Amino acid sequence: MEFSSKLLQNAVNEMAQLPGVGKRTALRLVLHLLKRPKNQTEEFAKAITQFRENIKLCKNCHNISDVDLCEICSNHKRQTEIICVVEDIRDVMAIENTSQFLGHYHVLGGKISPMEGIGPHQLTIESLVDKVKAGKVEEIIFALSSTMEGDTTNFYIYRKLKDFPIRMSAIARGISVGGELEYADEITLGRSIINRVPFEQSIKNTH
Amino acid sequence: MEFSSKLLQNAVNEMAQLPGVGKRTALRLVLHLLKRPKNQTEEFAKAITQFRENIKLCKNCHNISDVDLCEICSNHKRQTEIICVVEDIRDVMAIENTSQFLGHYHVLGGKISPMEGIGPHQLTIESLVDKVKAGKVEEIIFALSSTMEGDTTNFYIYRKLKDFPIRMSAIARGISVGGELEYADEITLGRSIINRVPFEQSIKNTH
Repeated sequence: MEFSSKLLQNAVNEMAQLPGVGKRTALRLVLHLLKRPKNQTEEFAKAITQFRENIKLCKNCHNISDVDLCEICSNHKRQTEIICVVEDIRDVMAIENTSQFLGHYHVLGGKISPMEGIGPHQLTIESLVDKVKAGKVEEIIFALSSTMEGDTTNFYIYRKLKDFPIRMSAIARGISVGGELEYADEITLGRSIINRVPFEQSIKNTH
Repeated sequence: MEFSSKLLQNAVNEMAQLPGVGKRTALRLVLHLLKRPKNQTEEFAKAITQFRENIKLCKNCHNISDVDLCEICSNHKRQTEIICVVEDIRDVMAIENTSQFLGHYHVLGGKISPMEGIGPHQLTIESLVDKVKAGKVEEIIFALSSTMEGDTTNFYIYRKLKDFPIRMSAIARGISVGGELEYADEITLGRSIINRVPFEQSIKNTH
């Protein structure tokens, strides 16, 4: 794409570096800014820059936070001895929306992925091991997505922690509530049969 | 969506004001910034702000430009007496890519759209009329998209200019080159029959 303006070209190139944004979409987004008042673009740029400059990670769970210790970690009503291991803040938000988990989180900041050059040392795994070593953890719940990378990361952490006297569990995989069996993939359906739960328990959970 | 951080919330809200970007996509884009070095986010914000602050519109054709008179308008090899009327810079880029047009452009900056509150006075129609009044224009080519708004805008300009001694034409609508007749919509196919061209001319154009 050739542009008549260097300023436009720069703006489009920068916008196109966002994931899932190609050159054409970037041009559309940048031209949209021209239709809005100048100060709105300033505010946009300011919000993005301030976020990147000043954002903190909670020193306990490594979730995104404005303060040193995030709201969840500083909430005394939550159980400190159960830790749910997740990839990033989106998973924390999703689980918080269920209101079914009252423990703490541990945000890894990604998954082990040799393809993307992400090794265990770029994640917050050491800090999780330290928490377990300190002896106050009773259970770790793995809640990573069930991809190759997620499974690898789970297994890496499992091996690091298997000699400590803690329970380790993974969130249940199965047919979604309200889901039709005939449309489910075989692997999910198979796991839902292998990991079946006692009927009394299943009634208690859904009602 | 509830966020654990005001900074994150601001950044997501600003990002979500871009067209076609919802809250979830905005969150994904903003979290992506965290994975890149800080200076990249600074450069992103700088490019966007500088574009919005310093961008100029060519004083002749109103296209986006870094200088007062854009490259096309200042190119002496181009015909000044044929003017192609387009909506925005994307249309200019698309037509330039064909290398089939050697006249000047006139960028309207939008289409008349009562639904979006865009009237003729927000577009650069007056400036086009002035050019015609100055007497150096021989032909106007309408190249707006063939929507209700595009047709309305074409007709509005046509009425303003119909008493001047100039030709007014519209780009041809028809079956795309290489397109199959059976998959074309009826309106396009119908217009391609009504606006058929002499066979000798059609050979000359495609080979």
